[in-house]
Formats: sequence, structure tokens, C-alpha cells
Amino acid sequence: MSEPVSAAERSRPRAARAASARTFGMDDLTAPAALVEARLERWLASRELPDNLLQAIRYAALAPGKRLRPILTLHSCAAVGGREQDAVAAAAAVELIHAFSLVHDDLPAMDDDDLRRGRPTLHRHAGEAMAILAGDAMLGLAVELVLAEIDPPRLAAAVCAELIAGCNAMIVGQVYDTVPAPPEPGEEPAARLRRVHRHKTGALIRASCRMGARCGGAGQAALERLTEFGEAVGLMYQIVDDLLDVTQTTEHLGKTAGKDAGRDKLTYPAVHGIEGSRREIERLRRAAFDALAPLGPPAEPLRTLCDRLAVRTR
Amino acid sequence: MSEPVSAAERSRPRAARAASARTFGMDDLTAPAALVEARLERWLASRELPDNLLQAIRYAALAPGKRLRPILTLHSCAAVGGREQDAVAAAAAVELIHAFSLVHDDLPAMDDDDLRRGRPTLHRHAGEAMAILAGDAMLGLAVELVLAEIDPPRLAAAVCAELIAGCNAMIVGQVYDTVPAPPEPGEEPAARLRRVHRHKTGALIRASCRMGARCGGAGQAALERLTEFGEAVGLMYQIVDDLLDVTQTTEHLGKTAGKDAGRDKLTYPAVHGIEGSRREIERLRRAAFDALAPLGPPAEPLRTLCDRLAVRTR
Repeated sequence: MSEPVSAAERSRPRAARAASARTFGMDDLTAPAALVEARLERWLASRELPDNLLQAIRYAALAPGKRLRPILTLHSCAAVGGREQDAVAAAAAVELIHAFSLVHDDLPAMDDDDLRRGRPTLHRHAGEAMAILAGDAMLGLAVELVLAEIDPPRLAAAVCAELIAGCNAMIVGQVYDTVPAPPEPGEEPAARLRRVHRHKTGALIRASCRMGARCGGAGQAALERLTEFGEAVGLMYQIVDDLLDVTQTTEHLGKTAGKDAGRDKLTYPAVHGIEGSRREIERLRRAAFDALAPLGPPAEPLRTLCDRLAVRTR
Repeated sequence: MSEPVSAAERSRPRAARAASARTFGMDDLTAPAALVEARLERWLASRELPDNLLQAIRYAALAPGKRLRPILTLHSCAAVGGREQDAVAAAAAVELIHAFSLVHDDLPAMDDDDLRRGRPTLHRHAGEAMAILAGDAMLGLAVELVLAEIDPPRLAAAVCAELIAGCNAMIVGQVYDTVPAPPEPGEEPAARLRRVHRHKTGALIRASCRMGARCGGAGQAALERLTEFGEAVGLMYQIVDDLLDVTQTTEHLGKTAGKDAGRDKLTYPAVHGIEGSRREIERLRRAAFDALAPLGPPAEPLRTLCDRLAVRTR
């Protein structure tokens, strides 16, 4: 079932980690990505999956990537005094959900993208039917992973509810973005933009933080702080993404650049200008820091990560 | 958000129930479908969904249908002494998963079907992007429903694990069916056929029974009996489906008939002949009855349902 991993494939997670380190500027912040990838590999190998489906899922979920969401889950767990290993299953699950969303978003009927993380998108690599089914399977396997590997069941149910709430809001965001209904009466472009971003990117990043907090045994106050942090970082991350789409090349990003403008999508640079977008990034960075203040030194990795995300170039 | 349901739409669930009653031959067996539909309507209306997504999900999930899986969930709950209302949330969730699978299976890149339950398929009705996203959302909303509305959390986690295990095996079955890998060495066509059917249809029907059993507080022995029952009925159901595909018209079925033969799919009639398939149906009907024997009179609705399924004509 799980054939030996080829040398070429083994090298990918390392390349991904190197890319992450370059992006975030600090090895020690992104080192936990290796833990998450190992857990994900083990989980996938433990399932009874046909080989072609397993390879498709591996191609999408273990492709080089920043692993931002699982890193947020691990650091959020640590920020409330939890141990890294308590949050690895949740972190692996959130990365699977993220990977599922990329695979379906790239489909011809959706964003119709050929390039993702520097390689052909899954439907280009393995066909459209497999991309649809592998996406579905990744969603299901993420839920199964949380329920099977988090204990006690009460915590598993709570973490799974966070994961699926984030996932569902993300899907709603994709509907707003891809098959938009007529604008809501009286809603300004800036408000509409916030609503799309809050759903499409923000919700799963928020969920990543909340899942980590729950795995670390956070009380209500700490959970609320990490929720605020996640909301600020999630929106900030997407605004940086919007900026990179207009300021960077496809080759540099490893995905198609300039496609937002090409499709007349509502983006921060389009609505607020480049300088206005940069000011908003700075405002959100401060809001994220304020949210973390009561958590003290254990939240330091989250602060450093937030700083790196504000100035990332890919 | 949830605009008033049109008269035409309201009439559909009634039509579906009438069709179910015709199919199964007994009103009292299918009356619980109304409970499940009402719960599903309420759940969908309670979510913050954009109107176009909500309408797409309603179109697919509340279309006329047999509601076989949720009815199995409710009757399995009753068979172990549980109350109907204890299993309605689980039943609604399993119908959502079933509806998700139909929507994605019908997509152009998959079975490319235009007709489902007597109406245009969702991608024909609302576009391909919406069909992909509505399917994703139905999967996520089913998980969220179980976690939000089943109590205590330990039971919610257990029921959700059953649901998602069934869902994942179903997706694997769809991979076997739609993007088949080379045949496994030494596997006979009859064994391959059983493997595909066990995953594609059997796993979710088995899960429907197990979810009902768990909601009804079944002990290990009763859970095992209902698992055996679900496995027998699930395979029997699919063999009947294979037979109907060759013996009935598209108009009668409300979905495209004759498509298995047209696509050279492995089916029971193709491998075992029509008479051989009928013998297998009878064998499975008896196996299902044997499994129920220890449960006594509370399992009577499941026995009657099983009999009706063996001789259904749509």
C-alpha cells in the first residue's frame, strides 16, 4: 500500500522547510513543520487507501509549503503552556484541510490554476476526477485524524468542532470569491473585502490558533486572546498575499502572480492602494501583539512569527 | 438569509415521501423521513450561509429521495431500544453526506450525469463551481451537525467517527470506480466487484446503522448485530441497483438507466448474470434477517424495510 518514498519526494519536505525558513527568517520557528509532516505521513500511511489516492494526497499535502497554519497551532499550544506533542495531530489536520482547499480552488471550474507551490496543480498532475476525490478525502481524513488521535473524546470533539467551523467558513469564503451573489445592499467595497478575507483565509487561521489553545488546555481568557491574535494575523496574512500578487513574479511565488488583477478580484491594493494596504498590515500587526500581551513570554514565538509574516516576500 | 420556501419546493419532500412509500411499500416505514428533512431544514437555516450556497445545498439535499440511510439510522436506534429523536441529528447528517457524494459523483469530470432524482443535477442547475463548493460544504456541515447537536461530547465524537469512517470509505469506493488503479494481482472480477460495492455503497449504509445503534445506546453485541445487518443490506441494495440499471428505464428511475453497461463498469449482472444476482440478493436478505434475530421485536421495522429493499423497482 505505502510504497517506499522516493529520494526525490523525501527531499521535498526539506526543501519546503528551507523555503519556510527563508520566508519567515528563522529556522527555529519553522522547525516544528518537520514534526507535522512526519505525523501527516504516518497518518496517511496508516489508512487503507488505494495507492493512486495516497500518492495524490501526498503530492498535495506534503508539497513544499510554509506550513503556516500548523505552526500557528503548535505555537498557540505552547503559548498557553501546552507541550508541542499535544497539538501535533491537530496541526496535521489543519494542514490537510488547507491542502484540500488549495486542490479544489485550483480546479478548472474554480480558479483554473496550473501552478501551485512551484509544481503543477494536482488536477494537472493526476487528473480532475482524482483532484476532486483527493480533496474530498483530505477533508474527511482531517476530521478522522482529530477524532482518532486526540484524547479524551471531549477534547477531540471540541478540537474537531473548531476545525470544521474554520473549514466551513473557508468554503463560504470561496463561494463569496468564486460564485459571488449580488452585493449586499449598502455594503461598501472595503466591508465586502473584509468579509471575503475573513472567511476565505481568516477563519482557518483563527481555527488553527484556537485548536492549539484547546490542545494546550487554555482557559477561556487565553482562548479569547489567541482568537483575537488569529483574527488579526489571518487578515494581515491575506493583505500581504494581495500585495505580493501585484509586486512579485510567478517564479518567485511558485504560484501564478498577477491573477487577482487579471480577474478583477476585490483586493486590498485595489481598494486601499499599496500604501493603504501597508498601513493596514502595520495596524493588524500591532493588534496581534496587543492580543498576546497577557500571555507573556510563552507567546514569544507567535510574536516573532507575526513580525516575519508582516514582511514576508513569498 | 433563509428566504421563505416556495410552494413548489415545499411540495418536493412530500413527493419524495410519497415516492419512498411507493418504493418501500409501507407508509409507516418512511414517515420518519419527514422528521429528518425538518431537522435538516432547521440546521441549514441556522448556519450563516450565503443565499446561493444555501439554495444549492437545499436543492441537492432536500430533493426527492428515498432517505434510505437516515431511515436505517432511525430504525437502528429503535432496534436497540432508543428513542427516534435521539438519532434524528445523526440521520440528518448521514443524508447530507449521501447528498454530497451524489453531487460530486455527478460532476462532468466524474460520472458526468445530467439527471438525478428526476431533476437536473446540481452542476447543471447551479454551475460546476457551485456544485463543487456545495458538496464540500455538505460534508463539512454534516460533521458540524453531529458535533453541535449530539450530547454528551463523548457520544458526539463516537458518532462523528462512524460517519466520517463511512464517508472516507465511500470516497475510496468512488476512486476504485472512477479512477481505477490496475487490478490487484490475482483478484477475481467477483472479488473486485465486492470490494468496490463494499466501499462505494456499503460503507455509508453500514455507518448509518452503527450511528443509529450508538445513538440508541447499543451495547457491543447489538452494535455488532447491526453492523452485520448493515453490511448485508448495503451490498444487497447495490446489487438491486445494478439490476435496476439494466431492467428499468431512465424515466422510471429518475436517473440515467443503462449507464453501467454503456461504460463497461463491473456490475453484478455483468459478472453473475441476472439470475445469479437475484440469488445473491436472496442470500443477503437472509443474512440480514439472521443478524437481526437476537434483537427481537424492536428490529421489526428493519426486517420489513429489508424485505421491501429486496424487491424495490426504483
